[in-house]
Amino acid sequence: VTTRPTIPDLLRVADAGSAGSVRAIARLLTVVESGGDPAAELAGELVGRARSAAVVGLTGAPGAGKSTMTAALVGAYRTRSARVAVLAVDPSSPFTGGALLGDRVRMGEHVLDPGVFIRSMSSRGHLGGLAAAAPAAVDLLAALGFDVVLIETVGVGQSEVDVMHLADTVAVVMAPGMGDGVQAAKAGILEIADVLVVNKADHEGAKATIRDLKSMVALGRSGVAEPGEWRIPVLPTVAVKGEGIDDLVAAIDEHRGNLVESGRLAERRSRRARAAVESVVLERVRVLLHSRTGRSRLGAAGDAVASGRTDHYTAAEDVLTWLAGTERG
Amino acid sequence: VTTRPTIPDLLRVADAGSAGSVRAIARLLTVVESGGDPAAELAGELVGRARSAAVVGLTGAPGAGKSTMTAALVGAYRTRSARVAVLAVDPSSPFTGGALLGDRVRMGEHVLDPGVFIRSMSSRGHLGGLAAAAPAAVDLLAALGFDVVLIETVGVGQSEVDVMHLADTVAVVMAPGMGDGVQAAKAGILEIADVLVVNKADHEGAKATIRDLKSMVALGRSGVAEPGEWRIPVLPTVAVKGEGIDDLVAAIDEHRGNLVESGRLAERRSRRARAAVESVVLERVRVLLHSRTGRSRLGAAGDAVASGRTDHYTAAEDVLTWLAGTERG
Repeated sequence: VTTRPTIPDLLRVADAGSAGSVRAIARLLTVVESGGDPAAELAGELVGRARSAAVVGLTGAPGAGKSTMTAALVGAYRTRSARVAVLAVDPSSPFTGGALLGDRVRMGEHVLDPGVFIRSMSSRGHLGGLAAAAPAAVDLLAALGFDVVLIETVGVGQSEVDVMHLADTVAVVMAPGMGDGVQAAKAGILEIADVLVVNKADHEGAKATIRDLKSMVALGRSGVAEPGEWRIPVLPTVAVKGEGIDDLVAAIDEHRGNLVESGRLAERRSRRARAAVESVVLERVRVLLHSRTGRSRLGAAGDAVASGRTDHYTAAEDVLTWLAGTERG
Repeated sequence: VTTRPTIPDLLRVADAGSAGSVRAIARLLTVVESGGDPAAELAGELVGRARSAAVVGLTGAPGAGKSTMTAALVGAYRTRSARVAVLAVDPSSPFTGGALLGDRVRMGEHVLDPGVFIRSMSSRGHLGGLAAAAPAAVDLLAALGFDVVLIETVGVGQSEVDVMHLADTVAVVMAPGMGDGVQAAKAGILEIADVLVVNKADHEGAKATIRDLKSMVALGRSGVAEPGEWRIPVLPTVAVKGEGIDDLVAAIDEHRGNLVESGRLAERRSRRARAAVESVVLERVRVLLHSRTGRSRLGAAGDAVASGRTDHYTAAEDVLTWLAGTERG
């Protein structure tokens, strides 16, 4: 008779770092992603654990070379013997769903390294969508003692921007010749980037892209630098050859140092925790809406609207009243 | 003294189809997108109006030629004198934010046609994300008497799939040489497609792609056709030359006829209304969470979790209890 391992069992195996630890971590992440009572139990078990991981976000337009960059960063952290977890957040398109798995192949050398944990998270089937389980997943990996948690997204859509808000330090990766995009995307990039990377810096147009980004950063800053103010560096890399990666790691370290000194690390950590709480709240509402009773309430509301008896705002009021009742009762 | 037009004013202008109607429709869509009391008032004003629009969804991988296809479809519907509204739903990436506006240029010939209304919707800044305002926007356009509402998405991510669920008929556009993607995406495509289109059918590999899709469709069907069962057609087009567009329009008409005969049109309409109701419910929850009190509750919860005093599931319970109170009080 085999029994399913309990959450404390899985945590023990994951902590021991033994042969089965990678599988145990993977199962714990599945618990987080699935939500509900087991996820709540796991969250309770993790209270009080230290979390000293540097959480690094890596995003950018498709084709900028993020996956190669992730692999290079993992290599750089491994030479310091840091334990690294990679969370690749996949929008799980019906059209590109398979792409990320293909990218994993580029992680080849790290797949068998026990100091590296790699996981693709997808939104497929998850009630809360893409970003819902990400805050709790990052927290789990930090609580399991990883020194670095790298979050990689394909950088399209608001939900990936939300994911990036979970990181202590966000590196946005661009490539030369994406100049038009840069123009359109100024606001969005400056909003989330702590470090700007121009990958494929040996390609034509790299210098122009670096210059554009530098003036963009300069324009985005106020005239006089405040003490302790972070200046977004613009770094050239050739990830496929490993060039510039050490400088990138140094910039990420420096940004983290700046966060600690300025007291803003605690602020970013609170923001991540707040996002985790908000995800659970919205997940709970969605679960209620998709419960048997919820679906029946929504169905009746939909029929009433479709048949022209009422409008969707009025119908929503009834559903909200019912929701409030379930939460209180 | 100029006064802001009221919602009934805007509706009168939009209905009259006069010179200012395009602007009035645009303003009404902004009301829908902004949510809150004005959106509720507008929804109330629209109760009881007929909605006979054919709602057609157009999606597919980037590069398949969706925008050109949309322009060609608009042209085809215009030769029948149908009034057409196009809702281009943009995931509003910080990296590709400008692309869709560029695509609008391809709609050139239709931009000045008073029988055509074109609107790009983005998720940027909208609390409910990409899909939240789309159901109500489709409903508004239908209630304003458009004969066809075309919803175009870039086809990446779960939220675009949600948007497609708003359509009566969904056409998925592919291009030759996307074979690998097809393999990975089978399940996703069959889940949403009513009509499959292989655009750029004059390119190399088109026949193979058509053959692959046809066998995919055949595999997805049960052995014996049920009476009235819809068979997903696979249609070659060269949108840029207008080739195959009439066949596509005919297939969309046929699918709609099938929905009417089988009684499933009412079902799809109820589903759309249900989605609109659910969006309002979730919007309301999000607005509460982002209100002054909500942010303060979430902030306290985040601090408690970040400092290790509690876990995010326990903290979420407190927030949910508060939410239920506001909804009831």
